[in-house]
Amino acid sequence: MNVLLVYAHPEPTSLNGTLKDFAVQRLQAAGHAVQVSDLYAMRWKAPIDGDDHPGRDPQRPFHASLDSREAYANGRQSDDIAAEQEKLRWADTVILQFPLWWFSMPAILKGWVDRVYAYGFAYGVGEHSDRHWGDRYGEGAMAGKRAMLVVTTGGWESHYAARGINGPIDDLLFPIQHGILFYPGFDVLPPHVIYRSSKVGEQNVADVLEGLGRRLDGLAVDAVIPYRRQNAGDYLIPSLELRPGLAEGAKGLGIHQRG
Amino acid sequence: MNVLLVYAHPEPTSLNGTLKDFAVQRLQAAGHAVQVSDLYAMRWKAPIDGDDHPGRDPQRPFHASLDSREAYANGRQSDDIAAEQEKLRWADTVILQFPLWWFSMPAILKGWVDRVYAYGFAYGVGEHSDRHWGDRYGEGAMAGKRAMLVVTTGGWESHYAARGINGPIDDLLFPIQHGILFYPGFDVLPPHVIYRSSKVGEQNVADVLEGLGRRLDGLAVDAVIPYRRQNAGDYLIPSLELRPGLAEGAKGLGIHQRG
Repeated sequence: MNVLLVYAHPEPTSLNGTLKDFAVQRLQAAGHAVQVSDLYAMRWKAPIDGDDHPGRDPQRPFHASLDSREAYANGRQSDDIAAEQEKLRWADTVILQFPLWWFSMPAILKGWVDRVYAYGFAYGVGEHSDRHWGDRYGEGAMAGKRAMLVVTTGGWESHYAARGINGPIDDLLFPIQHGILFYPGFDVLPPHVIYRSSKVGEQNVADVLEGLGRRLDGLAVDAVIPYRRQNAGDYLIPSLELRPGLAEGAKGLGIHQRG
Repeated sequence: MNVLLVYAHPEPTSLNGTLKDFAVQRLQAAGHAVQVSDLYAMRWKAPIDGDDHPGRDPQRPFHASLDSREAYANGRQSDDIAAEQEKLRWADTVILQFPLWWFSMPAILKGWVDRVYAYGFAYGVGEHSDRHWGDRYGEGAMAGKRAMLVVTTGGWESHYAARGINGPIDDLLFPIQHGILFYPGFDVLPPHVIYRSSKVGEQNVADVLEGLGRRLDGLAVDAVIPYRRQNAGDYLIPSLELRPGLAEGAKGLGIHQRG
């Protein structure tokens, strides 16, 4: 299959660089085609602004979503954005790899999302009716594709456990996994998280790579997170609240998973 | 008091621009000193990289946190970073104002956090022992200061409600409010969220501004989110899991609040 690896780390000789190189080799050895968007190496422009829409009337106020819609619809997006969208179309599976900085993705990767996820491409698509609130959360341009996060953290696994002080890793990643990946239609695999990344050294790097390797081997077959689809009956429209009777009395972001 | 408003929106004539201008006027009229970091107007550099540490040995691999520590300790950070840190020292209250893009902050604001929050300034401070795991989560350089988010969303309030499909707004903002603000010591006020921002027009903008005005009037006195302090006995050290007996059986990020 075709795998796009979107990679956000500034230092090629880092653990993240090692993981990325390993991933490319492992995937290619398994017969997959791989493209890497190495955002730091590409000097990816992070902030969305009017320069993303060449030829726009500079007198008109810039509107991030409406400008994005117009530029996408008219084929007048900046080339870097269009190229990433083409890679997403090409891909069967997308991996986002990054160090967890301040409990989220690095700015440069957030800027990839903000700019590549154009109106008409990743959102604002599909019919709006009293039974269908647009193609999102399980439907959309990425439907049929899979996605997975590969994340390193400096902190300990227990700090990200169910009762850990940082918050459970699945809750911290919910805005990304549910809000950025499931929203435009990806099926989302459980994340692969490498804790205490600064303690990975020559002694244990082989184990760490093998752990990642097993996840890469399972990309096409491992079970995905069973997020509830928006338009399949579990949510009221238009309030988009979970239907009474489902997960009654339950708390936490887990209510947005089936079963 | 001294208020720092960190503002991330590309268009001055937008609702966000109007809110920002209103906030400055309201705060100044109440006798406060205000500084604004208008990140788009400043053309803030978002990605952290070796250029943030002028004079570093370019042959040495770049390490985001260790380079940051060395540059901070030796007074060799880039000027834009040092200037923002000085504003943070000056401020009694910090407001982060931004549109919620993909369930988090815009890339340019994440880049402000990634770069300004240096090792030795916002993290990696304080004693590490079997009773004290560094000055963080309620202690640290920002202790005694307050912070508040002002956030606009395109989506409806019900979509961000306890059972709303996007996830509860407090959970989506937890990585920011708990992980970026409470972590270095801020007392965090409940967020001020303006939903369905595209529906704010001439008819109702006065109400929206007045709603923000009331929150600004209460900055110094309103109750803050009662997050649990890391080193005050509620967490086991070093696992940093909530101590048995506290919030037993409870789920969700709310367990990290007292009471």
